[in-house]
Amino acid sequence: MVDRKEALELHSKNPGKISVEPSVEIEGKEDLSLVYTPGVAEPCKEIEEEVEKAYEYTSKGNLVAVVSDGSAVLGLGDIGAEAAMPVMEGKANLMKKFGDVDGFPECIDTDTAEEIIEHVERIEPTYGAINLEDIKAPRCFKVEEALKKSLDIPVFHDDQHGTAIVVGAALRNALELAERDLENSRIVISGAGASGIAVANFLLDAGARKIVPVDSSGILRTDDENSYKADLAERTLASEEEGDLEDAMKDADVLIGLSAPGIVSKEMVESMAEDPIVFALANPEPEIKPGKAKEAGAYITATGRSDFENQVNNSLAFPGVFRGALDVRASDINEEMKIAASEAIRGFIEPEKDNIVPETLDKELAMEIADRVAEAAKNSGVARE
Amino acid sequence: MVDRKEALELHSKNPGKISVEPSVEIEGKEDLSLVYTPGVAEPCKEIEEEVEKAYEYTSKGNLVAVVSDGSAVLGLGDIGAEAAMPVMEGKANLMKKFGDVDGFPECIDTDTAEEIIEHVERIEPTYGAINLEDIKAPRCFKVEEALKKSLDIPVFHDDQHGTAIVVGAALRNALELAERDLENSRIVISGAGASGIAVANFLLDAGARKIVPVDSSGILRTDDENSYKADLAERTLASEEEGDLEDAMKDADVLIGLSAPGIVSKEMVESMAEDPIVFALANPEPEIKPGKAKEAGAYITATGRSDFENQVNNSLAFPGVFRGALDVRASDINEEMKIAASEAIRGFIEPEKDNIVPETLDKELAMEIADRVAEAAKNSGVARE
Repeated sequence: MVDRKEALELHSKNPGKISVEPSVEIEGKEDLSLVYTPGVAEPCKEIEEEVEKAYEYTSKGNLVAVVSDGSAVLGLGDIGAEAAMPVMEGKANLMKKFGDVDGFPECIDTDTAEEIIEHVERIEPTYGAINLEDIKAPRCFKVEEALKKSLDIPVFHDDQHGTAIVVGAALRNALELAERDLENSRIVISGAGASGIAVANFLLDAGARKIVPVDSSGILRTDDENSYKADLAERTLASEEEGDLEDAMKDADVLIGLSAPGIVSKEMVESMAEDPIVFALANPEPEIKPGKAKEAGAYITATGRSDFENQVNNSLAFPGVFRGALDVRASDINEEMKIAASEAIRGFIEPEKDNIVPETLDKELAMEIADRVAEAAKNSGVARE
Repeated sequence: MVDRKEALELHSKNPGKISVEPSVEIEGKEDLSLVYTPGVAEPCKEIEEEVEKAYEYTSKGNLVAVVSDGSAVLGLGDIGAEAAMPVMEGKANLMKKFGDVDGFPECIDTDTAEEIIEHVERIEPTYGAINLEDIKAPRCFKVEEALKKSLDIPVFHDDQHGTAIVVGAALRNALELAERDLENSRIVISGAGASGIAVANFLLDAGARKIVPVDSSGILRTDDENSYKADLAERTLASEEEGDLEDAMKDADVLIGLSAPGIVSKEMVESMAEDPIVFALANPEPEIKPGKAKEAGAYITATGRSDFENQVNNSLAFPGVFRGALDVRASDINEEMKIAASEAIRGFIEPEKDNIVPETLDKELAMEIADRVAEAAKNSGVARE
């Protein structure tokens, strides 16, 4: 278990988790005259003439904004921009450590999709890519859709796509071990926020045919006033079924929890099909603790945390995904690139029951993901280098 | 002279001049569970409860946004946000090198004061202070005024106040060497942009009584449609005089050029009072080269560049000014703090004709400025720590 005091101590030491460092050293007057005035005027003039030269003469090409309004942070909810900083700094820290990417937190005080869109459009000159983070649904969908259209740099909502990439990889390996296939498995997805909807869409694209999406009101309905939920209901078993999570889980082969702490009981796992797969990914507290799920018969369990086996966490994906996109100056992070990332993760290990995904702390994995993502970018025509 | 090729090579090496680095190392799974999920939830919850704790658990307290719309970059004019990046990265680089401050470029695509104000208000949660930079006048005045009112963190337009601090220090030392006093010296200020107006105001506050501000249309007029210029004309000799720069410079003791390359001739310097002081600070090309000014009788010369003697450049001030303000979590960078910074620079050396200001490359100077600025913040009641 994580100790509260230890976590606070680590964060208060510097304080914080990132620093901005010179990447060019100033040793004497001559260096200064190149780094700053008058020499700095030369790259400025070059970029003024041809804006793409920003990639040649500035840090832009390796800078990723980690943008959040703090409206859906971890399992904590709408805690505000300041309180979101530790998460965004954590992401920036991991980006550099594993992907050699310069991530920077843009925690912004705003409350509407329109304002987030406006903000990110204005900072585009500074960054090579945008990581949207911890923005609540359906606001996040609107923001991502708009920015994908208006920006020339890639936009990636990690809560959606990072999660989908990693869950997709973990589920493939778990199904293989359980000798099941994706098409015929009944897959209950608890939670229809950003990550739940993205995971469902990703699995549908991959061939799943028996998905049951559930939110806190029960199995999704085709007349939900949230059009993203209604649309998903339409394309899944939710269009034919009614009931709550307990009903949905009966005879299910797979549960993917992206919802709330402790909402799954032992009895609910016992009602699943034989040897079920239970991913309880709510953060920081899972829907059901792995030990309890196993007592109820779970064949394979996973959580989002690093202190249990099988950490299914988007930190496996994002450093490599951004590295790959930046390496080829991609204009987008598209479906092909996401699938390539998921395949890279899936194939990186020989899966075992308590090892269905690679360790998070593996820089080689990030580089493997980066290579595959960059290749997919080239093959799908969004690479610009 | 600075070599164009060398400057471009330096900027394209990495490329760029800053990097974002982890300030907390992740060595194993346990570290990861503290830096990221689930441990990261603890500081988030603390800050949600009391927003000031962001200073205790995040990098906010040491982060300074270097904000520019690229509308008045060096001597290059309105070159746009992307082309402004090398300057903002240069500032960030110097902030860390000399002030241990984490500066970060926020180069934004916008064209109005209102949008800049809105943008900076939204990013306030991320930063401990704001450095406005290379925003054209009078837009910059409007932006600074509004943000000083609306933000709880210090806002400092370096082109104005950094320049005023350093010019003030340099001029004091030059006048001492020339055995003149500030009150009775005729001081022509060429240029009524952000820095020209700020320098004039700073010197007026310090006791100067014979200032003649001039812009490209000649000596300022009290009926100028730009209210900042009209107001300055009202409070200086410009309210009594007419003419162009050539007229203004006759019998002047001091010229402070913050205007345009090459606009001051040898003859104009010859028309000044005996042993005049000539600060030709236009960047990157001065109003008159120091050698030429000396041939025309200049007693002391200065430029903004590091490749001539007496570099009067705001890079002397800003790393220490921000260090001091951040150290005491100041809510403002006020007049008292600016005067303290200027005094720290002035008194740091025993002045000589070719050494009226300290070397830019002196971290001890930045720390001395920081101490004096922090002290002034405390004495003037804006320190919060």
